[in-house]
Amino acid sequence: MAGRKVLIVYAHQEPKSLNGSLKRVAVEELSCLHNPEEFNYGVETWEAYKRGDLSNDLIEEQKKVQEADLMIFQFPLYWFSMPAIMKGWMDRVLVQGFAHEFPNCYDSGLLKNKLALFSFTTGGSKEMYAKGGISGDIRYLLWPIQHGIMHFCGVKVLAPHICFAPEYVSEEKRKEMLIAWAQRLKALWKEEPINCSPEWYFK
Amino acid sequence: MAGRKVLIVYAHQEPKSLNGSLKRVAVEELSCLHNPEEFNYGVETWEAYKRGDLSNDLIEEQKKVQEADLMIFQFPLYWFSMPAIMKGWMDRVLVQGFAHEFPNCYDSGLLKNKLALFSFTTGGSKEMYAKGGISGDIRYLLWPIQHGIMHFCGVKVLAPHICFAPEYVSEEKRKEMLIAWAQRLKALWKEEPINCSPEWYFK
Repeated sequence: MAGRKVLIVYAHQEPKSLNGSLKRVAVEELSCLHNPEEFNYGVETWEAYKRGDLSNDLIEEQKKVQEADLMIFQFPLYWFSMPAIMKGWMDRVLVQGFAHEFPNCYDSGLLKNKLALFSFTTGGSKEMYAKGGISGDIRYLLWPIQHGIMHFCGVKVLAPHICFAPEYVSEEKRKEMLIAWAQRLKALWKEEPINCSPEWYFK
Repeated sequence: MAGRKVLIVYAHQEPKSLNGSLKRVAVEELSCLHNPEEFNYGVETWEAYKRGDLSNDLIEEQKKVQEADLMIFQFPLYWFSMPAIMKGWMDRVLVQGFAHEFPNCYDSGLLKNKLALFSFTTGGSKEMYAKGGISGDIRYLLWPIQHGIMHFCGVKVLAPHICFAPEYVSEEKRKEMLIAWAQRLKALWKEEPINCSPEWYFK
Protein backbone atom coordinates (compact mmCIF):
# COMPACT_ATOMS: atom_id res chain seq x y z
CA MET A 1 0.00 0.00 0.00
CA ALA A 2 1.42 3.32 -1.06
CA GLY A 3 3.21 5.20 1.71
CA ARG A 4 3.51 2.30 4.24
CA LYS A 5 7.00 0.92 4.85
CA VAL A 6 7.71 -2.79 5.23
CA LEU A 7 10.99 -4.38 6.28
CA ILE A 8 11.35 -7.98 5.13
CA VAL A 9 14.11 -9.89 6.91
CA TYR A 10 14.83 -12.90 4.75
CA ALA A 11 17.23 -15.77 5.36
CA HIS A 12 17.57 -18.71 2.99
CA GLN A 13 20.50 -19.75 0.83
CA GLU A 14 18.44 -20.74 -2.20
CA PRO A 15 16.42 -18.16 -4.16
CA LYS A 16 14.41 -21.02 -5.75
CA SER A 17 13.31 -22.34 -2.32
CA LEU A 18 9.78 -21.88 -1.03
CA ASN A 19 11.16 -19.23 1.33
CA GLY A 20 12.61 -17.43 -1.67
CA SER A 21 9.29 -17.61 -3.48
CA LEU A 22 7.34 -16.45 -0.44
CA LYS A 23 9.66 -13.47 -0.07
CA ARG A 24 9.31 -12.63 -3.76
CA VAL A 25 5.53 -12.71 -3.57
CA ALA A 26 5.64 -10.41 -0.54
CA VAL A 27 7.95 -7.94 -2.32
CA GLU A 28 5.70 -7.90 -5.37
CA GLU A 29 2.46 -7.61 -3.41
CA LEU A 30 3.66 -4.96 -1.01
CA SER A 31 5.86 -2.87 -3.22
CA CYS A 32 4.65 0.55 -4.15
CA LEU A 33 5.23 0.30 -7.85
CA HIS A 34 2.67 2.22 -9.84
CA ASN A 35 2.78 -0.47 -12.51
CA PRO A 36 4.53 -3.62 -11.23
CA GLU A 37 3.77 -5.39 -14.54
CA GLU A 38 6.09 -3.17 -16.48
CA PHE A 39 8.72 -1.01 -14.86
CA ASN A 40 8.90 2.50 -16.32
CA TYR A 41 11.55 4.58 -14.56
CA GLY A 42 10.11 7.95 -15.58
CA VAL A 43 6.61 7.07 -14.42
CA GLU A 44 7.69 5.35 -11.20
CA THR A 45 9.88 8.24 -10.07
CA TRP A 46 7.17 10.75 -11.00
CA GLU A 47 4.57 8.82 -8.97
CA ALA A 48 7.00 8.30 -6.08
CA TYR A 49 7.73 12.04 -6.09
CA LYS A 50 4.03 12.90 -5.95
CA ARG A 51 3.39 10.65 -2.96
CA GLY A 52 6.60 11.84 -1.20
CA ASP A 53 8.06 8.39 -1.51
CA LEU A 54 11.43 8.94 -3.17
CA SER A 55 14.43 7.66 -1.23
CA ASN A 56 15.80 10.03 1.39
CA ASP A 57 19.02 10.83 -0.42
CA LEU A 58 17.00 12.11 -3.39
CA ILE A 59 14.63 14.13 -1.23
CA GLU A 60 17.66 15.79 0.38
CA GLU A 61 19.26 16.59 -2.95
CA GLN A 62 15.99 18.04 -4.21
CA LYS A 63 15.79 20.24 -1.09
CA LYS A 64 19.26 21.57 -1.83
CA VAL A 65 18.26 22.30 -5.44
CA GLN A 66 15.06 23.98 -4.26
CA GLU A 67 16.94 26.25 -1.88
CA ALA A 68 19.68 27.20 -4.35
CA ASP A 69 19.66 30.28 -6.56
CA LEU A 70 22.69 29.01 -8.43
CA MET A 71 23.94 25.46 -9.00
CA ILE A 72 27.64 25.06 -9.81
CA PHE A 73 28.66 21.74 -11.32
CA GLN A 74 32.41 21.15 -10.94
CA PHE A 75 34.00 18.15 -12.67
CA PRO A 76 36.69 16.83 -14.99
CA LEU A 77 35.35 16.30 -18.50
CA TYR A 78 35.14 12.54 -19.15
CA TRP A 79 34.34 11.51 -22.70
CA PHE A 80 32.89 14.86 -23.79
CA SER A 81 30.53 14.87 -20.81
CA MET A 82 30.30 14.78 -17.04
CA PRO A 83 31.53 11.70 -15.13
CA ALA A 84 28.93 8.94 -14.84
CA ILE A 85 28.43 9.60 -11.13
CA MET A 86 27.30 13.17 -11.87
CA LYS A 87 25.11 11.97 -14.74
CA GLY A 88 23.55 9.65 -12.17
CA TRP A 89 22.75 12.68 -10.03
CA MET A 90 20.94 14.23 -13.00
CA ASP A 91 19.10 10.98 -13.84
CA ARG A 92 17.94 10.47 -10.25
CA VAL A 93 17.37 13.95 -8.81
CA LEU A 94 15.67 15.82 -11.65
CA VAL A 95 12.52 13.72 -11.71
CA GLN A 96 9.29 14.64 -13.40
CA GLY A 97 7.01 16.57 -11.07
CA PHE A 98 10.02 18.16 -9.38
CA ALA A 99 12.11 19.60 -12.21
CA HIS A 100 9.69 19.48 -15.14
CA GLU A 101 6.16 18.29 -15.86
CA PHE A 102 4.94 18.44 -19.41
CA PRO A 103 4.14 21.00 -20.81
CA ASN A 104 6.26 22.75 -18.18
CA CYS A 105 9.64 22.28 -19.76
CA TYR A 106 12.26 24.54 -21.30
CA ASP A 107 11.34 28.18 -20.57
CA SER A 108 8.49 27.11 -18.29
CA GLY A 109 10.44 24.28 -16.60
CA LEU A 110 9.76 23.92 -12.88
CA LEU A 111 13.23 25.13 -11.86
CA LYS A 112 12.93 28.46 -13.60
CA ASN A 113 14.42 31.45 -11.73
CA LYS A 114 17.49 29.33 -10.96
CA LEU A 115 20.91 29.60 -12.53
CA ALA A 116 23.45 26.89 -13.40
CA LEU A 117 27.15 27.11 -14.15
CA PHE A 118 29.25 24.24 -15.48
CA SER A 119 32.86 24.56 -14.36
CA PHE A 120 35.16 21.85 -15.66
CA THR A 121 38.65 20.82 -16.64
CA THR A 122 39.64 19.10 -19.88
CA GLY A 123 42.36 16.69 -20.90
CA GLY A 124 42.61 18.14 -24.40
CA SER A 125 44.02 21.57 -25.19
CA LYS A 126 42.15 24.71 -26.18
CA GLU A 127 43.37 24.23 -29.75
CA MET A 128 41.87 20.71 -29.95
CA TYR A 129 38.55 22.14 -28.72
CA ALA A 130 38.51 25.07 -31.14
CA LYS A 131 36.16 25.35 -34.09
CA GLY A 132 37.92 23.31 -36.78
CA GLY A 133 40.05 21.56 -34.13
CA ILE A 134 40.09 17.76 -33.98
CA SER A 135 37.66 17.66 -31.04
CA GLY A 136 35.42 20.40 -32.42
CA ASP A 137 34.23 23.59 -30.73
CA ILE A 138 33.88 22.90 -27.00
CA ARG A 139 30.39 24.42 -27.21
CA TYR A 140 29.21 21.44 -29.30
CA LEU A 141 29.49 19.16 -26.30
CA LEU A 142 27.75 21.60 -23.97
CA TRP A 143 24.44 21.27 -25.84
CA PRO A 144 23.19 18.09 -24.14
CA ILE A 145 24.30 19.30 -20.72
CA GLN A 146 23.21 22.93 -20.76
CA HIS A 147 20.25 22.76 -23.14
CA GLY A 148 19.11 19.15 -22.76
CA ILE A 149 19.25 19.08 -18.96
CA MET A 150 19.31 22.57 -17.44
CA HIS A 151 17.31 24.54 -19.98
CA PHE A 152 14.79 21.68 -20.17
CA CYS A 153 14.15 22.21 -16.44
CA GLY A 154 13.80 25.98 -16.91
CA VAL A 155 17.22 26.76 -15.42
CA LYS A 156 19.11 29.64 -17.00
CA VAL A 157 22.74 28.95 -17.80
CA LEU A 158 25.74 31.19 -17.13
CA ALA A 159 28.73 30.90 -19.47
CA PRO A 160 30.74 27.75 -18.70
CA HIS A 161 34.04 28.03 -16.85
CA ILE A 162 36.63 25.89 -18.57
CA CYS A 163 40.21 25.14 -17.52
CA PHE A 164 41.92 23.55 -20.49
CA ALA A 165 44.43 20.75 -19.91
CA PRO A 166 45.59 21.66 -16.38
CA GLU A 167 47.62 18.44 -16.29
CA TYR A 168 49.90 19.76 -19.00
CA VAL A 169 50.58 23.30 -17.78
CA SER A 170 52.93 24.66 -15.11
CA GLU A 171 52.08 25.00 -11.42
CA GLU A 172 52.22 28.75 -12.00
CA LYS A 173 49.58 28.51 -14.73
CA ARG A 174 47.34 26.36 -12.53
CA LYS A 175 47.52 29.00 -9.80
CA GLU A 176 46.47 31.60 -12.35
CA MET A 177 43.50 29.42 -13.22
CA LEU A 178 42.37 29.45 -9.59
CA ILE A 179 42.81 33.20 -9.32
CA ALA A 180 40.79 33.76 -12.51
CA TRP A 181 37.97 31.59 -11.12
CA ALA A 182 37.97 33.52 -7.83
CA GLN A 183 37.87 36.79 -9.77
CA ARG A 184 34.96 35.64 -11.86
CA LEU A 185 33.02 34.48 -8.80
CA LYS A 186 33.31 37.89 -7.15
CA ALA A 187 31.24 39.45 -9.94
CA LEU A 188 29.11 36.42 -10.71
CA TRP A 189 25.76 37.81 -9.60
CA LYS A 190 26.01 40.56 -12.18
CA GLU A 191 26.42 38.15 -15.08
CA GLU A 192 23.68 37.63 -17.64
CA PRO A 193 22.79 34.08 -18.68
CA ILE A 194 23.67 32.90 -22.18
CA ASN A 195 21.03 32.73 -24.88
CA CYS A 196 20.59 28.94 -24.75
CA SER A 197 19.59 28.28 -28.37
CA PRO A 198 21.31 26.43 -31.26
CA GLU A 199 22.96 29.70 -32.36
CA TRP A 200 25.05 29.89 -29.19
CA TYR A 201 26.32 26.35 -29.67
CA PHE A 202 26.65 25.81 -33.40
CA LYS A 203 26.84 29.21 -35.08
CA MET B 1 54.11 -3.87 -4.44
CA ALA B 2 52.61 -3.83 -7.90
CA GLY B 3 50.95 -7.10 -8.92
CA ARG B 4 50.78 -8.74 -5.46
CA LYS B 5 47.33 -9.10 -3.93
CA VAL B 6 46.63 -8.51 -0.25
CA LEU B 7 43.37 -9.22 1.57
CA ILE B 8 42.94 -7.19 4.74
CA VAL B 9 40.23 -8.51 7.04
CA TYR B 10 39.38 -5.65 9.37
CA ALA B 11 36.99 -5.57 12.30
CA HIS B 12 36.52 -2.53 14.50
CA GLN B 13 33.48 -0.30 14.92
CA GLU B 14 35.40 2.97 15.06
CA PRO B 15 37.34 4.27 12.04
CA LYS B 16 39.25 6.64 14.38
CA SER B 17 40.50 3.74 16.55
CA LEU B 18 44.10 2.54 16.46
CA ASN B 19 42.85 -0.50 14.53
CA GLY B 20 41.27 1.84 12.01
CA SER B 21 44.53 3.79 11.68
CA LEU B 22 46.62 0.63 11.37
CA LYS B 23 44.36 -0.63 8.61
CA ARG B 24 44.53 2.70 6.80
CA VAL B 25 48.33 2.72 6.92
CA ALA B 26 48.38 -0.82 5.53
CA VAL B 27 46.02 0.12 2.68
CA GLU B 28 48.13 3.13 1.82
CA GLU B 29 51.45 1.33 2.03
CA LEU B 30 50.38 -1.76 0.14
CA SER B 31 48.13 -0.27 -2.48
CA CYS B 32 49.32 -0.29 -6.04
CA LEU B 33 48.64 3.33 -6.79
CA HIS B 34 51.09 4.80 -9.27
CA ASN B 35 50.97 8.07 -7.39
CA PRO B 36 49.35 7.67 -3.95
CA GLU B 37 50.05 11.35 -3.16
CA GLU B 38 47.59 12.56 -5.75
CA PHE B 39 44.98 10.33 -7.31
CA ASN B 40 44.65 10.77 -11.06
CA TYR B 41 42.00 8.45 -12.49
CA GLY B 42 43.32 8.55 -16.06
CA VAL B 43 46.88 7.78 -15.03
CA GLU B 44 45.97 5.11 -12.46
CA THR B 45 43.73 3.17 -14.87
CA TRP B 46 46.34 3.47 -17.63
CA GLU B 47 49.06 2.11 -15.32
CA ALA B 48 46.76 -0.60 -13.96
CA TYR B 49 45.92 -1.63 -17.53
CA LYS B 50 49.59 -1.89 -18.47
CA ARG B 51 50.40 -4.15 -15.53
CA GLY B 52 47.23 -6.23 -16.07
CA ASP B 53 45.85 -5.06 -12.78
CA LEU B 54 42.40 -3.71 -13.65
CA SER B 55 39.51 -5.31 -11.78
CA ASN B 56 38.19 -8.51 -13.30
CA ASP B 57 34.89 -7.06 -14.46
CA LEU B 58 36.74 -4.50 -16.56
CA ILE B 59 39.14 -7.06 -18.01
CA GLU B 60 36.13 -9.13 -19.05
CA GLU B 61 34.39 -6.19 -20.66
CA GLN B 62 37.57 -5.28 -22.53
CA LYS B 63 37.83 -8.88 -23.79
CA LYS B 64 34.30 -8.61 -25.15
CA VAL B 65 35.15 -5.32 -26.86
CA GLN B 66 38.34 -6.79 -28.28
CA GLU B 67 36.49 -9.76 -29.75
CA ALA B 68 33.64 -7.73 -31.25
CA ASP B 69 33.51 -6.41 -34.80
CA LEU B 70 30.44 -4.36 -33.98
CA MET B 71 29.26 -2.87 -30.67
CA ILE B 72 25.55 -2.10 -30.38
CA PHE B 73 24.55 0.22 -27.54
CA GLN B 74 20.85 -0.08 -26.74
CA PHE B 75 19.29 2.33 -24.26
CA PRO B 76 16.54 4.85 -23.51
CA LEU B 77 17.77 8.41 -24.00
CA TYR B 78 18.07 10.06 -20.56
CA TRP B 79 18.75 13.77 -20.53
CA PHE B 80 20.05 13.97 -24.11
CA SER B 81 22.53 11.16 -23.40
CA MET B 82 22.91 7.56 -22.33
CA PRO B 83 21.83 6.52 -18.80
CA ALA B 84 24.52 7.06 -16.17
CA ILE B 85 25.13 3.32 -15.82
CA MET B 86 26.14 3.10 -19.49
CA LYS B 87 28.26 6.25 -19.19
CA GLY B 88 29.97 4.46 -16.32
CA TRP B 89 30.75 1.59 -18.68
CA MET B 90 32.43 4.07 -21.05
CA ASP B 91 34.31 5.80 -18.21
CA ARG B 92 35.60 2.52 -16.78
CA VAL B 93 36.13 0.22 -19.78
CA LEU B 94 37.68 2.50 -22.41
CA VAL B 95 40.90 3.21 -20.51
CA GLN B 96 44.04 4.68 -21.97
CA GLY B 97 46.33 1.97 -23.27
CA PHE B 98 43.35 -0.17 -24.24
CA ALA B 99 41.12 2.11 -26.32
CA HIS B 100 43.44 5.03 -27.07
CA GLU B 101 46.96 6.15 -26.24
CA PHE B 102 48.05 9.56 -27.37
CA PRO B 103 48.73 10.22 -30.24
CA ASN B 104 46.66 7.17 -31.15
CA CYS B 105 43.24 8.73 -31.00
CA TYR B 106 40.49 9.51 -33.50
CA ASP B 107 41.35 7.86 -36.84
CA SER B 108 44.31 6.04 -35.29
CA GLY B 109 42.52 5.13 -32.05
CA LEU B 110 43.33 1.65 -30.74
CA LEU B 111 39.86 0.25 -31.49
CA LYS B 112 40.00 1.03 -35.19
CA ASN B 113 38.51 -1.60 -37.50
CA LYS B 114 35.54 -1.87 -35.17
CA LEU B 115 32.03 -0.51 -35.71
CA ALA B 116 29.56 0.98 -33.26
CA LEU B 117 25.83 1.54 -33.52
CA PHE B 118 23.76 3.54 -31.05
CA SER B 119 20.18 2.28 -30.91
CA PHE B 120 17.91 4.20 -28.58
CA THR B 121 14.42 5.31 -27.73
CA THR B 122 13.36 8.86 -26.89
CA GLY B 123 10.67 10.43 -24.73
CA GLY B 124 10.26 13.40 -27.07
CA SER B 125 8.73 13.20 -30.53
CA LYS B 126 10.47 13.36 -33.89
CA GLU B 127 9.14 16.90 -34.34
CA MET B 128 10.72 18.07 -31.07
CA TYR B 129 14.03 16.60 -32.24
CA ALA B 130 13.92 18.14 -35.71
CA LYS B 131 16.14 20.99 -36.84
CA GLY B 132 14.35 24.07 -35.53
CA GLY B 133 12.37 21.92 -33.07
CA ILE B 134 12.44 22.81 -29.37
CA SER B 135 14.98 20.07 -28.57
CA GLY B 136 17.08 20.70 -31.67
CA ASP B 137 18.25 18.25 -34.33
CA ILE B 138 18.76 14.85 -32.68
CA ARG B 139 22.19 14.75 -34.33
CA TYR B 140 23.37 17.59 -32.06
CA LEU B 141 23.27 15.31 -29.03
CA LEU B 142 25.01 12.47 -30.84
CA TRP B 143 28.25 14.44 -31.14
CA PRO B 144 29.66 13.70 -27.66
CA ILE B 145 28.64 10.05 -27.87
CA GLN B 146 29.62 9.14 -31.41
CA HIS B 147 32.50 11.55 -32.00
CA GLY B 148 33.78 12.19 -28.47
CA ILE B 149 33.75 8.56 -27.38
CA MET B 150 33.65 6.15 -30.32
CA HIS B 151 35.51 8.13 -32.98
CA PHE B 152 38.10 9.13 -30.36
CA CYS B 153 38.86 5.43 -29.89
CA GLY B 154 39.09 4.87 -33.66
CA VAL B 155 35.71 3.14 -33.89
CA LYS B 156 33.68 3.83 -37.01
CA VAL B 157 30.05 4.68 -36.44
CA LEU B 158 27.01 3.36 -38.30
CA ALA B 159 23.95 5.60 -38.55
CA PRO B 160 22.05 5.64 -35.24
CA HIS B 161 18.82 3.70 -34.90
CA ILE B 162 16.22 5.86 -33.19
CA CYS B 163 12.71 4.96 -32.06
CA PHE B 164 10.93 8.19 -31.27
CA ALA B 165 8.53 8.33 -28.31
CA PRO B 166 7.47 4.65 -28.20
CA GLU B 167 5.52 5.37 -25.00
CA TYR B 168 3.12 7.56 -26.92
CA VAL B 169 2.38 5.42 -29.97
CA SER B 170 0.10 2.42 -30.50
CA GLU B 171 1.07 -1.21 -29.86
CA GLU B 172 0.83 -1.65 -33.63
CA LYS B 173 3.37 1.12 -34.23
CA ARG B 174 5.73 -0.36 -31.64
CA LYS B 175 5.58 -3.70 -33.45
CA GLU B 176 6.46 -1.93 -36.67
CA MET B 177 9.48 -0.42 -34.91
CA LEU B 178 10.72 -3.90 -34.00
CA ILE B 179 10.18 -5.17 -37.54
CA ALA B 180 12.08 -2.19 -38.98
CA TRP B 181 15.00 -2.88 -36.64
CA ALA B 182 15.07 -6.55 -37.61
CA GLN B 183 15.00 -5.57 -41.29
CA ARG B 184 17.88 -3.19 -40.85
CA LEU B 185 19.96 -5.76 -38.98
CA LYS B 186 19.61 -8.27 -41.82
CA ALA B 187 21.56 -5.94 -44.13
CA LEU B 188 23.75 -4.33 -41.50
CA TRP B 189 27.09 -5.69 -42.65
CA LYS B 190 26.68 -3.97 -45.99
CA GLU B 191 26.23 -0.52 -44.42
CA GLU B 192 28.89 2.16 -44.73
CA PRO B 193 29.83 4.14 -41.60
CA ILE B 194 28.86 7.80 -41.38
CA ASN B 195 31.40 10.52 -42.03
CA CYS B 196 31.94 11.42 -38.37
CA SER B 197 32.82 15.12 -38.74
CA PRO B 198 31.05 18.34 -37.66
CA GLU B 199 29.26 18.51 -41.05
CA TRP B 200 27.30 15.33 -40.32
CA TYR B 201 26.11 16.71 -36.97
CA PHE B 202 25.65 20.44 -37.45
CA LYS B 203 25.31 21.14 -41.16
